[in-house]
Amino acid sequence: MNILRSFVEGRWVEGKGPSATLVNPATEEALASTSTAGIDMTAVVAYARSRGGPALRELTFAQRGELLKAWSKALHAARDELIALAMRNGGNTRGDAKFDVDGAIATLAHYAELGAQRYAGLHLWVPRDGVAVHINAFNFPAWGTAEKAACALLAGMPVVSKPATSTALVAHRLAEIGAPLLPEGAFQFLCGSPGDLLDRLGYQDLVAFTGSSQTAAKLREQLARRGARLNVEADSLNAAVLGPDVQPGGATWDLFVQDVVRDITQKAGQKCTAVRRIFVPAAQAAAAQEALLERLAQIRVGDPAREEVNMGPVSTADQLRDVRAGIARLAGESQPVFGGDGSVRALAPEGKGYFVSPVLLVARDAAGATAMHEHEVFGPVATLAKSDGPAELVRRGGGSLVCSLYSDDRGFLRDCVLAVAPYHGRIYLGSEKVVGQTMGPGTVLPQLLHGGPGHAGGGEELGGLRGLSLYSQRVALQGDRALLDAIAPTAMT
Amino acid sequence: MNILRSFVEGRWVEGKGPSATLVNPATEEALASTSTAGIDMTAVVAYARSRGGPALRELTFAQRGELLKAWSKALHAARDELIALAMRNGGNTRGDAKFDVDGAIATLAHYAELGAQRYAGLHLWVPRDGVAVHINAFNFPAWGTAEKAACALLAGMPVVSKPATSTALVAHRLAEIGAPLLPEGAFQFLCGSPGDLLDRLGYQDLVAFTGSSQTAAKLREQLARRGARLNVEADSLNAAVLGPDVQPGGATWDLFVQDVVRDITQKAGQKCTAVRRIFVPAAQAAAAQEALLERLAQIRVGDPAREEVNMGPVSTADQLRDVRAGIARLAGESQPVFGGDGSVRALAPEGKGYFVSPVLLVARDAAGATAMHEHEVFGPVATLAKSDGPAELVRRGGGSLVCSLYSDDRGFLRDCVLAVAPYHGRIYLGSEKVVGQTMGPGTVLPQLLHGGPGHAGGGEELGGLRGLSLYSQRVALQGDRALLDAIAPTAMT
Repeated sequence: MNILRSFVEGRWVEGKGPSATLVNPATEEALASTSTAGIDMTAVVAYARSRGGPALRELTFAQRGELLKAWSKALHAARDELIALAMRNGGNTRGDAKFDVDGAIATLAHYAELGAQRYAGLHLWVPRDGVAVHINAFNFPAWGTAEKAACALLAGMPVVSKPATSTALVAHRLAEIGAPLLPEGAFQFLCGSPGDLLDRLGYQDLVAFTGSSQTAAKLREQLARRGARLNVEADSLNAAVLGPDVQPGGATWDLFVQDVVRDITQKAGQKCTAVRRIFVPAAQAAAAQEALLERLAQIRVGDPAREEVNMGPVSTADQLRDVRAGIARLAGESQPVFGGDGSVRALAPEGKGYFVSPVLLVARDAAGATAMHEHEVFGPVATLAKSDGPAELVRRGGGSLVCSLYSDDRGFLRDCVLAVAPYHGRIYLGSEKVVGQTMGPGTVLPQLLHGGPGHAGGGEELGGLRGLSLYSQRVALQGDRALLDAIAPTAMT
Repeated sequence: MNILRSFVEGRWVEGKGPSATLVNPATEEALASTSTAGIDMTAVVAYARSRGGPALRELTFAQRGELLKAWSKALHAARDELIALAMRNGGNTRGDAKFDVDGAIATLAHYAELGAQRYAGLHLWVPRDGVAVHINAFNFPAWGTAEKAACALLAGMPVVSKPATSTALVAHRLAEIGAPLLPEGAFQFLCGSPGDLLDRLGYQDLVAFTGSSQTAAKLREQLARRGARLNVEADSLNAAVLGPDVQPGGATWDLFVQDVVRDITQKAGQKCTAVRRIFVPAAQAAAAQEALLERLAQIRVGDPAREEVNMGPVSTADQLRDVRAGIARLAGESQPVFGGDGSVRALAPEGKGYFVSPVLLVARDAAGATAMHEHEVFGPVATLAKSDGPAELVRRGGGSLVCSLYSDDRGFLRDCVLAVAPYHGRIYLGSEKVVGQTMGPGTVLPQLLHGGPGHAGGGEELGGLRGLSLYSQRVALQGDRALLDAIAPTAMT
């Protein structure tokens, strides 16, 4: 009997173990047997990653199209054979079999020739017929509420918005101001626990969550069971990278120092986009450390009600405890060179407030370190590391919201962008030309995507109209062109 | 002390139970308390659905933009107050507070004015740095393999393709033909069980699955734990709807009858896009039933190797058992009017083969029925129901791949499209103008989306370049324009 084999690691391999039998469903005649017993799946995945991925990415878009064209043509040449197989193994009529086989040929050909599209239909985005639940983090009560609401409302979905309780005052006021302006039911606001709200959701509903990856993991299970959509924006180990061409004293150097210190200390480091890891070439490491320390020394911690203060406390007693524990964990593999001994001189009444000093650590061995790449300390804390090939270390963050690259060398920037892009939602290029025109990597712009893969939650918010897709069902409309034109203007195409 | 309230069901409501205290993190001064205890979350969700959703959808896109503009302006007017709140409740410096509050104002304004975008960056799609695992269903071994591979390969991701074992012969040959044409490692093929393959995946990898919703549910949990992406195309209760304007004997009527019978019997009904439910106005019900029966009587079931046969067997003994059980379940609430008594006259050797007759049932009470809306019988089986307001019944399918509407009345079509669109991935409009030019609703075109919400799995495949997004990481690139232009051509924008 015909034994079917698997194609793995460049070879057709026969399974070594119990096999399944393929039959003709019209006659029950046995046609073939097959098995994957004995195949090493670790090797299969490794092979795809180490060989297939790089090979495909080396090709241009057009070249990949050529491959699909070749496959389509080769299938066409074997069309009769394939149809006969389908009739025997699938119980297909000749028409049924053609439907499948010709579908394969046409699909490969279509993607091979994308660009010369025939007009056969269009795509509409229609609002999902449910409720958008927004769960926001404590650090951006206003912007977080607004960025989620803007996309949901413009898309046409009603919102139930829940701020983090500890900093709810701002969100509450935002809601008070907004609620009377909106249609009845379009915006609701839950100031405290969501209770059993999430157990009330179904597949037309969704949750947009910003917060910790632990909470996100629970939500994933809960909402998967209910079939509701979930967008997560969670922890992120954002990196700043200094290019080998950037010399102390130049405009790009100064931009790097200024951006990094701002994105360590702004909002006392309680920003999902804050810089947590800093990679500099060995040759510039000493000068970079010195420049960062000098600027950090200008930070005055204290009660923001006092005018001279330029960094406030962290948000709650719990946050302070977590930040201190996180610093201790980082200090297990890196050396604090600023702050980090637990003491802080705060311009505030003695013994009150959740203050912490900015902390800079220097990694002893960034490649061997784990905490610096995996543990987000949600305070004014970052780790500096020497590296002359930073892309691999950047990727160790396991998926981040933003990476900032400082250089005026296009070759370096291009290589670095392509190496780290699959691991990020946004990449910020700091160069001479943007000095004075940028708010740094920590600022999320509505026209650009906010979110990141992996550790950062795998979500996508904002990005202009892209931000509406979470709240929309995309639907293809097929039919007579005049009819489509008559219907289409009622919804976004 | 200030008690914060929630805004639900159009009212600001104070929680009745244990409350949380908000403090000034710089001074630990208590600022306010809040609670959601006692709020009925069922009512909250119902209110958003019944009031907010319809109200928003009644507005145009531009009108929703106006709402956001109004909110943005109102916030701007309260900016100092919001900043002061943020400084007290957030421990923010004035600069920190502005960052949040101004972010809110600017984001609302941006979405209010989308259209006049400033150029501040661009979005690239880069291939995900992992493996695309394709798990295909038994019914389309060729097309299923090809449609997934086309998108993955063009996007630049290596593929591990696994066909359904029972009908693997066609997919195997497809792989044999394709493998030598592709770069090493770009395409692997597992002919049998995937073993522990899925436990080898991480967050840069993904699975595109076509199959049952039970298997999909398991995959969702398994892959959520691993952080891998999952696209599901599962069960679907596709509906065909006849418009009240369509009269027997006309071109649109004939198209309806022809499409429906084709999409019941093609591939013995083993198509995820097959018609399962048929809704006709009461006035045309008798004529529609007669026309469908007449055409079903022309179906000759048997071994597809015989030329006169125009419907083959189902694919396996298991499938046959499932189809028979499904017919019995449907017959509990609907009356079989063609087939359905278990007998079949098949043009095949006596006692061999997995044959079933086409079955048409007529619903006694479509609004009260459950099985017809929830249970997909994967064979040549459909239920006909009278309905003069079909949209609500169509939606009872809980999310489907495709809905077909037959009418030449634009008003009817527009209303019906908008009512059912959030519940579908594709809508097919059958009208006089497309007669002779269409392959019917059951044919998936590469330029149009394939997938559907809810019951259908919530996935998206194909749809031209949209089909590549599953295999891509979208990344925003920020920086000097000349720099972006220099880097951008290396990837898809």
